[in-house]
Formats: sequence, structure tokens, C-alpha cells
Amino acid sequence: MRIALDALDAMGGDYAPANTVAGAVMALREYPKITKIFLTGDEQAVRAELAKHGCTDPRVEIVHTTQVVEMSDAAVEAVRKKKDSSVSRAVDLVKKGEADAIVSAGHTGAAVAATTIKLRTLEGIERPGIASYLPTKKNVCVLIDAGANIDAKPLHLLQYAIMGSVLSSQVLGYKNPEIGLMSIGGEDVKGSEFTKDVFKLLKGSSLNFRGNIEGHDLFEHPVEVVLCDGFTGNVVLKTAEATASAVFRWLKRELKRTPFRMLGAWIARNAFRAIRRKTNYENYGGSPLLGVDGICIIAHGSSSPLAIKNAVRVAVEFIEQQVNPKIVEAVRSYNQKNPSARPAESVADAV
Amino acid sequence: MRIALDALDAMGGDYAPANTVAGAVMALREYPKITKIFLTGDEQAVRAELAKHGCTDPRVEIVHTTQVVEMSDAAVEAVRKKKDSSVSRAVDLVKKGEADAIVSAGHTGAAVAATTIKLRTLEGIERPGIASYLPTKKNVCVLIDAGANIDAKPLHLLQYAIMGSVLSSQVLGYKNPEIGLMSIGGEDVKGSEFTKDVFKLLKGSSLNFRGNIEGHDLFEHPVEVVLCDGFTGNVVLKTAEATASAVFRWLKRELKRTPFRMLGAWIARNAFRAIRRKTNYENYGGSPLLGVDGICIIAHGSSSPLAIKNAVRVAVEFIEQQVNPKIVEAVRSYNQKNPSARPAESVADAV
Repeated sequence: MRIALDALDAMGGDYAPANTVAGAVMALREYPKITKIFLTGDEQAVRAELAKHGCTDPRVEIVHTTQVVEMSDAAVEAVRKKKDSSVSRAVDLVKKGEADAIVSAGHTGAAVAATTIKLRTLEGIERPGIASYLPTKKNVCVLIDAGANIDAKPLHLLQYAIMGSVLSSQVLGYKNPEIGLMSIGGEDVKGSEFTKDVFKLLKGSSLNFRGNIEGHDLFEHPVEVVLCDGFTGNVVLKTAEATASAVFRWLKRELKRTPFRMLGAWIARNAFRAIRRKTNYENYGGSPLLGVDGICIIAHGSSSPLAIKNAVRVAVEFIEQQVNPKIVEAVRSYNQKNPSARPAESVADAV
Repeated sequence: MRIALDALDAMGGDYAPANTVAGAVMALREYPKITKIFLTGDEQAVRAELAKHGCTDPRVEIVHTTQVVEMSDAAVEAVRKKKDSSVSRAVDLVKKGEADAIVSAGHTGAAVAATTIKLRTLEGIERPGIASYLPTKKNVCVLIDAGANIDAKPLHLLQYAIMGSVLSSQVLGYKNPEIGLMSIGGEDVKGSEFTKDVFKLLKGSSLNFRGNIEGHDLFEHPVEVVLCDGFTGNVVLKTAEATASAVFRWLKRELKRTPFRMLGAWIARNAFRAIRRKTNYENYGGSPLLGVDGICIIAHGSSSPLAIKNAVRVAVEFIEQQVNPKIVEAVRSYNQKNPSARPAESVADAV
């Protein structure tokens, strides 16, 4: 298995290429299935980081790039104008058949645009969506779209529902995964004009659709697939992450106020560790970009080496599990079952 | 001070009128400034609840209503067709000058619609917005709109920014409150078509606008006013609440796993209490609906008696603080400072 790891773009400052290279070194040690990791970025900087880890692994190949996508760049423009950026070159490696998957922790929009433009979407899919994992009471659920398609159309969400169901059943092992639409009230009549249109599309489909869900359903009555447009999904994920992390920080401060409390916290320390592990995004690794004709794993913008390593792990799993052919098959099967509402055609006119 | 408390609508089941009446009884005991609480709802049911508390306070007046707004009713339709619902009658009392403020824990959409239709909006304001309080590291910030205006226009958000600033400075005491626009990336170019339009409006205004903010800014680098459309705001609030509550629930379960951990938790119990207090919505009371020509406080849908009591407290504060005339003054002053971008007129055409 050959991974193209965007080692540089858009991370700037302290993180890149330090964390991306450190994560690659961890992944090489842990996953012997990897036969090659391409590190795209400034050769000298990447080489210096590899040296810090004493890494002379022959499976590493540096692909030198000269341009950098900045966080302030507009996504599509960055792809068109900066052809020699690390994210562009990483995608090129997959396009040329030299790598099996891309992992990027840089500018999400640029990674989505580069992948969509260069690799195109799968048959029957109009726009790719990022599928992220959210911890639930007993396990995890899939949230799609976490930020690939900001101004989405209702039809895109129908396609996300199909793709999310495939991921949920094929990778997470849920039988007949249930889909919930993120909205602002559980009742059918609640929501924005947009979610009401999506609701109608899903209600009339053969998919296993529960209906509208709200924040508390995410954790208490979880569905297997949480459906939303990219803006809402990104806000949900970042708010959930930020809230969990604020609660832990505030709790830590309270626990440090007196030696007595500190003693209690020390005695119960394993409980805190367990809960931190459950809520730490680093352990979930990267989020697959579903719907492109290739494999692209989006890692968190401020990824630690551990998060990068786990994003590479997700890429390895994806290569093994052959999710893309299953998505194409699921879309075809959906079209056969719902002849009056073909996702790629007549529904588009109806909405 | 005279409060009209919607004691019944849309809560159904175990909560209403039990919790609303219990909250009213608590408020009457604690706030001697209250000269009257109208309880609108089914007289017999309300009377039975009052009897449970042994409440014979002469300040209570029951206003019997015969219709109930169900959670599944569409908001505007509920107001038009169910004129004798408890929320409608509560608003009527304010309209007739018999009460100074409405408190509702029922169907948010119906409360917003009834208030907007019957009381109208303030001069210069097109649509009202719900202002909710979110805890930050040191204090609280104002999030507007938390769910009144689901399919908002950019201009509405400019008006929310003005109203949120007035609330933040006049009620919370912040000098020159800073405004942040909830988006999906801190950079100016990031966001949906909608937030990009709002960004342009605010950037070109005389308001104290920081720019885009994301989840982690809510708690780590808080602004005083968090700006978003009603759909996004509602999702942010409910996700934050649900996440905090899931983290506590999971932590509790971990702490109960061994007697050793339980001992630690018991020793440190005051730290848990402090943090629960900080993150418990019940302590923040209700959320004012800003922009209507009257005072309406929206309480949480599943309000406990404590939450209802605190919503009544917020109503009392609002009556004292005379926020509405200050909003009208702030809009006028904004229009003078920004002659080329009057919120109620030319900007509407420009967007």
C-alpha cells in the first residue's frame, strides 16, 4: 500500500512539516502493510524532520514541491494557480497510479477541490462529502458532510445518505444503518427551507430514514448516519469538540483549586483517562472524503503526530475495504429501487 | 411588575403545567417586585398544580384557555388558527397593557410568531432574534439568533449584531462588545455564500466586528456577541448542551466503575458541582426575544421549575433595564454613522 501524505500545505507555524513527518514515522513503524509513503513538501524541511526521528526507512520518498497553499487562499483558485503545491502533487500521485490514497491535514477546501477536479466523482455522485466519526454512548456514528460542500443542494444530501450508509455498514459493521437529518426540532414540520426539502426527498426514498434529529440525539439516541450540509456539519463537529475540551479544561481548573480536590482527582485518574480517550478526536484519525474516484483522507487541521498516524491507518483500512465500488453499487441499487426519484437526474429537477 | 406566563402550550406529558406552575411559585417567593403572574392554560390543571404547592398567593391570576399548540403545529398557522391557546393569550395580555412581559417554555416558533404578529417589531428591526447566553472562560457571551429566524437574510444578522451589542453592553456590562460571525474557518474567505454576504456587511459597518469565529473561539477566545442565523445558532446551542451533558454522563459512568474511583470522585465532589453549575442551562434562565415591541422571554423546551423561575427573573431584569428603547436608539445611531448602509433600507437592496 502506497500513501501520498501532504506533508506541508497550509499548516504553517509549528505543526508542519513537524507533525506530519512525525505521524508518518509512527505509521511506518506500526503498519508493515505500507510499502511506500510519499511525503510531498519542501524537501529540505521534510528531510530535516526525518533526521530528527533518525528515520532512514527506505519506504519514504520525498516529492519536492515549491508552492504553498495558505489558509487564506480560496480553494479552487489554490488548485488552479498552485500546481506545484504539496496537496496538488499528492493528488497527482494517486491520479498517476503511483499512490493508492491521499492523506491531507492542510487546507480542507483545497484538498477537496484538488481531489474533485483531478480524480472526478464516482458514478452517480455529484459532490463529495467528508464523513467524520462522532463518539456515541456505545460506539461511533458517521456524520456526513463535515465540511466539503458548504452550499449544498438537497440532492447532494440524498447522495450523502447513501454513501454514509455504505460506510456505516461496510466499515463500522452496522446492519441496516439508520439515518437522521440534523435539524432544529424532532418534528417533521421543523427545520429550514433546505432541511425541509431534504426531509421530503428522504421520506419518499427507500433509505432507512428516522427523520429530524437534534443535538441531544447525537449522543443519547444516536442514529448510525447523521446527515447535514457541510456548513452545519462542520459547525456541529467543531462545537462538540470545543465544548468537550472546554468542559475538561474548566474541570481541571476546579480540581486544582485545593489539595483535597487534587487528591480526589488523582485517585480517580483512570476514569478521566478513559473519558479523554473516548472524546479525543486524535484517536478517530482522519475523515474519508466520500464520493471521489480515489481515496482521500482529511485529517484535522491542527493534527498531532498521533492524529496523522491514525489518519494514515484510516487510509490503509480504506484501501483494504474497497468502499468505493460498494458506493457505486449502492447508488445503482438505489436508482433501481427508486425509479421515480433517480438521485442524479429527475430528483435534481424536482427539487 | 406583571408577568404573563404561558403555563401550558406544547409541552405536553410530564412537564406542563407542573414545571411552569412550580417555577412560578418559586419566582413569586423570590421576587417581591412581581405584583402579578398571569398563568395562561387550562384552569383546572393549573389550579391543581397550584394546590400541590399550597399556593394561595393573591398575585396569581389564572387565564383559562381552551386550545393547545402542539409541537407538531406549524408556527404561524398555530397563531392564526388557535387564538385561544395559552401562548396567544399570554401575548394578548401584554398587547392590552395588562402584563409587562411574556415568558414561554412552549413551542418556540409559536411564541415568536404570536409576539411578532401581535406586538410587531421595533423601529428599524425587520425580524426578531433570540439572544441566548453561553458560558465562556470567565463570564458569558450572547449568541443571537438562537432559533427565531430560521431562513434569515444577511441584513437580519446586521440588525442582530446591533441588538446583541446593546444587550451585551447594557445588561452584561461589556464596554464596546466585540462581534464574531459563526463560520467554518477563521479566515475572511471562509464560509457559506450566506456568511460571506454577512461578513461584507459587517466589515463595512461601524460595528466592532472581529471577523469569522469557529467552535473553539466560543470558549477559548470568546467574543461578546456570537452572530449566526437561527438554524445555525440553534444547532450550536443544542450541540454544546448535548456534548457537555454527554461528557458528564460518560464521566459519571467511568467514575462509578470501581469503589476506588468513587472515593476519588467523592473527595473532589465540589469541583464537579462547580463545573455543573457553570454549564447548566437552568441557571441562565430564559433567552430574550430581541427586536419585538414588547418583552418576551423564551425558556428551554424541557424547562425544570428552576429554569422557569430563572426565566421569570430574566423578564424582571428586562423590565427594569429598559433594553428596547436602547435598541431603537442604537439602530438610529447606527443609521446616522453608516448613511450609505442603512440597515432597514438601502442595505436590503444591496444584498
